[in-house]
This record gives sequence, structure tokens and C-alpha cells, in this order.
Amino acid sequence: MNPQKLKGFRDFSAEDLKLRYRVIDTLKEVFSLFGFSPLETPALEMGETLKGKYGPEADKLLYTFTDRGGREVGMRYDLTVPLSRFIAENSGSITLPFKRYQIQPVWRAENTQRGRYREFLQCDADIVGSRSPLADAEIIAVSYAVFQKLGLSYAAIQINSRQVLFKLLTNAKISSPEIQLSVLRSLDKINKIGKDGVEKELSAKGLSSSLIETVFANIQKAEPDENLAAVIALAKELGVPAEKLCFESTLSRGLDYYTGVIFEISTTEGSLGSLAGGGRYDNLIEKLGGPALPATGIALGFERIIEVLKESGLGKYKETGISVLVIPVTESETSVALKTLRQLRQNGLGAEIYPELGAKMEKQLKYADRKGRDFAVIIGPEETANKTVVLKNLRTQSQEVVSFDDLTKQLESCSRESLE
Amino acid sequence: MNPQKLKGFRDFSAEDLKLRYRVIDTLKEVFSLFGFSPLETPALEMGETLKGKYGPEADKLLYTFTDRGGREVGMRYDLTVPLSRFIAENSGSITLPFKRYQIQPVWRAENTQRGRYREFLQCDADIVGSRSPLADAEIIAVSYAVFQKLGLSYAAIQINSRQVLFKLLTNAKISSPEIQLSVLRSLDKINKIGKDGVEKELSAKGLSSSLIETVFANIQKAEPDENLAAVIALAKELGVPAEKLCFESTLSRGLDYYTGVIFEISTTEGSLGSLAGGGRYDNLIEKLGGPALPATGIALGFERIIEVLKESGLGKYKETGISVLVIPVTESETSVALKTLRQLRQNGLGAEIYPELGAKMEKQLKYADRKGRDFAVIIGPEETANKTVVLKNLRTQSQEVVSFDDLTKQLESCSRESLE
Repeated sequence: MNPQKLKGFRDFSAEDLKLRYRVIDTLKEVFSLFGFSPLETPALEMGETLKGKYGPEADKLLYTFTDRGGREVGMRYDLTVPLSRFIAENSGSITLPFKRYQIQPVWRAENTQRGRYREFLQCDADIVGSRSPLADAEIIAVSYAVFQKLGLSYAAIQINSRQVLFKLLTNAKISSPEIQLSVLRSLDKINKIGKDGVEKELSAKGLSSSLIETVFANIQKAEPDENLAAVIALAKELGVPAEKLCFESTLSRGLDYYTGVIFEISTTEGSLGSLAGGGRYDNLIEKLGGPALPATGIALGFERIIEVLKESGLGKYKETGISVLVIPVTESETSVALKTLRQLRQNGLGAEIYPELGAKMEKQLKYADRKGRDFAVIIGPEETANKTVVLKNLRTQSQEVVSFDDLTKQLESCSRESLE
Repeated sequence: MNPQKLKGFRDFSAEDLKLRYRVIDTLKEVFSLFGFSPLETPALEMGETLKGKYGPEADKLLYTFTDRGGREVGMRYDLTVPLSRFIAENSGSITLPFKRYQIQPVWRAENTQRGRYREFLQCDADIVGSRSPLADAEIIAVSYAVFQKLGLSYAAIQINSRQVLFKLLTNAKISSPEIQLSVLRSLDKINKIGKDGVEKELSAKGLSSSLIETVFANIQKAEPDENLAAVIALAKELGVPAEKLCFESTLSRGLDYYTGVIFEISTTEGSLGSLAGGGRYDNLIEKLGGPALPATGIALGFERIIEVLKESGLGKYKETGISVLVIPVTESETSVALKTLRQLRQNGLGAEIYPELGAKMEKQLKYADRKGRDFAVIIGPEETANKTVVLKNLRTQSQEVVSFDDLTKQLESCSRESLE
């Protein structure tokens, strides 16, 4: 037997998790500052709750199965459908507008050859129950604040509105809602396949070349409508710098369910494109079986944010506390070593001891090094007699004798950064 | 369509999550202080990794299914098997002893009528790669430190050793390993079914009454062996108070895989019994397909800890920061209100605004109340002209006029606790 993890799934060990936990904590902090509350929903939902909600392509990526009770169940595929199910189930008791954030893994049976993972973290923030442009502006402002807090202040926001797009299509005499959405799905690919590619696709969909020309001309001269202008103005007043918030009339977003303002956040550095996207979806919750409530929200691309932070060097985790390996030179110093260990921990200093008592000093120092400890506190017979310890800086390899009583104070005065 | 969550699964909203996040943060903090690093493994593992590892009863509770690629897969059932799979897969690159903690949900198709959940959080800490009694003592000490940090310092630890139990059974002429384990599985129920119940079960398993009497007499007079005495002594030196650490010769733990020291942590208050349990399992990792590495660890009963904290009143979350609803009296004050909102947030004060501009004051105050906000910052035409705001304490309903420039300072000087 040769146990392996499944293709498309990942283990996360200490190094990965330090960064991931830091980003999660930042998200929680910023969302909470803006008045959003957390929500967590189960990994499994009833099959019927999930099926037929994401479109035929996505349905094929659902992890669904029959459980031992004969029920069809499915693993969480996104966070919007579970939110809608939660609201439908609790509509009598929730306070509107309902502002929630949710950070949980989702599962999609993607083709792993395209470099995609089958388990990844999603992170959504939504406001349910308000049609106000201020709700859209708050979503944009909280997203911008997240990127700022993460140090990605070069992230920029492209904004548009489905209402603007629908109107310009109607003006071009494309009035069928189905064809309008089909045109927007093609337009959404403009950054990937270029204007030529979009034109080709629209032509294949049966649009005449003069009609396509009209559509692009209308897009060219499109301007924000009153509602979109209000959202942009409010977002600026909420702290989004004017130069970071650009009206982009070609922005259309791929999903059919958007009904109003749409936006995307991308970074100008790195090559990862969109880091977050969202918009207003006023009919979705009712469609998903919930009450008729308008909503607006954002989905942050957690895995992409992690990649960008790593790429830009911001992902290098700065330890704030220092940590120590306590080393008794012989087994006779065990008690003093354990007392030291205990005292360091009581003072909030990360400290551990190599469990094999009497192991060679060299082996223990190697262990400390591999675990990234900052100091070794070495205690031999002489030190025990003198009530001292040897404090060895594992970065510089320099060492000094410190009185036992001063050890904690001395370590507390060192910050991790001062060591580097 | 009437969407519902699945039976045995739970949604967690803000109130639940405040406590759950606080406990998770405490666990992470204490584990890290003791030199443990985090690990996360996928929700799905290969079916063969999980099957046949937990025993025939447990195998029936596994959520297994065939994925779209025709592979048999299963949802995470505990954290020990994934740890073993991780170690087997990465044995060349991990630093030994490997000290990891892991906090992730697991899924079991339990009978929900017994009040059990099908999705719940598990929280394990293990040291892999050391046979030293100091490793066991560290596991006990870190567990005790967790309970202390959570305010559950009345939690007490019962400790025993499988070696002590195996020896006394051998002395009673029960030498077959299978029968020894069978006797221990019965003995494990002593707190539930009493000594009489255990005797009845052993009798049904074919043990003569004189043999049963000998077993209980041996248990009565059992004493810690040298290794167990060393673990107890070391745990005390690591800070576990002597009166909290009791040798309990009837403690046997239900699982077959324990090979050495075993322990359980329970609270004397409340009626929830065991809050954590663990011990040494030196053969399991190899059996699970990993390298031949000894190990010792603990599984904390996260859901029980939450219940005990709630029961004991310790689960009442103390907000450390205060939070505010900013209310523009008319739409003309929107800009000033947004400027205020932005300033409060920039100073780390949780602040939000009701998105429907021009909504009635009463409605907005009700919203603030339902969301548990501490203050309303009310801005009308007069306040705007005078560069002031009305600061209304939502607990006492008292209000005062504060100059705009002093608002942040004044709010910062209030702590949540001073309000209650």
C-alpha cells in the first residue's frame, strides 16, 4: 500500500498556512470593520439545492452522490447558493439588510490538467435586501480595503453596469434577453480572445457584421447611467481613490445572473488578471428558492491573492514573536530546562524542547534550525550551578551567558525583525 | 421548491462563530506556543486510504462515493489517517519529531436521532517520531494549557498506560492480545455501565467469574510503571498541577491502536464527561501505510468544549472593540456621514451605514439594536453646520453632542466592557 492524496487536492503545511491564515485573518478583520458578520454553511447540501443552479457545464463539475440514507447530496460548489438556501430557511429571523461574509472551501471536479484545483477556498461578502447604490459602493469599498490591508494597493477596479449594457444592446435593436446575455457572454472574453475573437464569436452566433459594428460603437461611447454614477461617487466617498475606480464599458462578467452594477478587481503587477469580481444580482435569491430579495456582493479569488502575494514578495510571513529551543546539555539539567520552558511559555514566548533527552547537541541545533527557531537556550551543569543559561542566536551564531532571571526579559526585548 | 439543509448538518451564524473562532484562535495560539505547526489535508481522500482503518462499525459511517473519474473517494472521517497518509507521502522531507496540530471538519454518517452531528470540527495535536516520555508529557501539558487558556481550569486529567493494563492482564493469565483488547474494550465502558455491567460483558465474552475477580483485583492494586511515572513527573514539571493529574487504573480508552500511555481530560462541572482523549500509538502510522514511526497525541472534543463554555457562561463573547451605526438624518448629510464612516474605519472602529439613504431614524436605530451596535452617530443639518455629531449610547439611550474632530478619540476611549 502506497497512500497518496487525490489528484487536484493539496495538503497545506506550516509555511503555506502561515500566509493563508494571515490573509484569512485580514479578510475577517476588514469585513468586520465594515459591519459584515460571518456565516458558515455545511459542506454537503441536498442535491436538488445545487443542481440546475450553475448551468449545464458547471453541473458536470458538481461532486454529487447518494448518501447511505438514499438521499442525493452534493458538496459545496460555491457560497452563493448556500447563502440563498440559508436565507430561504431563515427569512423570518434574519435582520435585513443581511451583511455576511463567508470563507470556506468549495469543491469542483475540474480538469486538473488545466492547472486547476478541485478543492479551493472561496471568500464572499454580500449585502442582501437592499437596492441602494450605497450597498454596491460598500461592497466595492470593503473589497478595496481588503486589498489595501494586504499591501496590494496597486489593485484597480473596473466597473460597469448590466443596465448600461442591456440598454446599449436594446438601442442596437438586440432586444431579446436571451440574445443580450449571449452577446455579453462573448464580450466577457474580450481580454482573452481580443476584439477580433469576440467579433468572430458574435458572427458565429448569427449577428450581422453591421450589427456587431453598431454594438461596438455603442460600447465605445457608453457612459455610466445615473445609478452607476451614484455608485462610483459613493465608493469614492467611502475611500476608494478616483484613479483606482475606472468605468470600463467592455466589462460584462460571464454569469447570467447579474442584473445591475458589475465590477472586477485586478492587479496591474503580476500576470494573474482578475483577483475579485462581483456585482448586483437582484433576482437570484428568489430563483434559488429564497424570498424575493435584491442582493449585491463580491467573490474574492483567495487562491489568486495568495499567488500574487507570493509573487510580489508580500507573502513572506513576518513572524511577530520569537521562538526558542531549550536544550539541556545532559539529562541532569532536565528539571531546570523544563522550568525554563514553562516560564518562557507563560510569558508568551514560543518555546519547545527536543523530546529525546540526552540527544546530541548538534542534532538538537539542526532541529532548531530546520524548524526556524530564533534562539537556543542551552543549559549545562555549570549554568545550572550559576543560575545562568547560554543564549545562542541561531541567525548570527553568536552566544552570551544570561542570568536565568533576566532570560525572559532579554528575549522579550528582541523582535523577530530586529534579528533579520 | 423549499430549500432546507440536510439533517445532521448545521449553519453557523455570527453568534456561534464568534465563540467558535475565539476557541480556534486560542487553540492555534497555545499549540504554536508549544512548538506545534499547523497542517491541513483535503476533504477527500482515496477510498482505500480510509477503508478498513477505523473498524467495521466506523466503516459504515464513512461518506464514500465514486467520483466522475471512476475513483472511489471518501470524505475526511478523522485527522489521524490523513496525518499518516501525509507522513507516508512526505517522509523524505519532514523534520522529525514532527509536531503538528490540525483543526478541520470531519464527516460521519451518524444516526442523527442520537443527537449527533454528521459534520463537526476535530482538533488534534500529535508528535510523530519520538518514543520519549517527554513527548507524552508535552501532549498532556499542551492540552492542559489549552483548557486553562479557555478558562476551564477545573478540567482534570486521568492517566493510565496500556502497558500497565496489558501486564496485569498477562499476570491474570490472559495473554492472547485479541482477548486483552476485548477485555479493555469492555473496561472502557465502566463509567457508562458500571463495574457490574463490565463484569456481565466479560462473562458473556467467556471469562470465568474467578478470572474476572482477579482482573478487577489486579486493576485495584495497579500502580504506574517506570515509563508512566516518568510521564507524570515530566507533565508536572511542565506545569500541570499535581492535583489535576490522576493515575486511574480503570481508564482503558476504546480504540485498539493505543500501545502506551493513555489519558482523558474531563470537566468536574457540567455533565458532558470527556472533553479530550489521547495517548501513544506506536504502530498505527506504519499500519496505515506510513513509515515505522512512533507517535503520541490528543484529540480535543471541539463541539463538547463549545457546549461546556456555553453552559458555564464562559462562552459569552466579550467584544473587545466597539461598533457604530452612522446615521445621516437627511440625504443632504450623506457626504458628511460617509466621511465619518471612513474616518472611524480608518481608526479601527467597526462602523456601518444603513444602505437605504433617507430611511426613517426609528428603522435605522432598530437595525443598530438588532445588530448589537454600541453607538449611533447621528448627523443632521445643524450638526453639519456646527461640525458636530450626536453620539447616542444605544445601551443607556443617553446622547451628547460631540465635535466632529473629537469623535474618534471619544469612541476609542470607550471599551465595550465599560458599557456593560
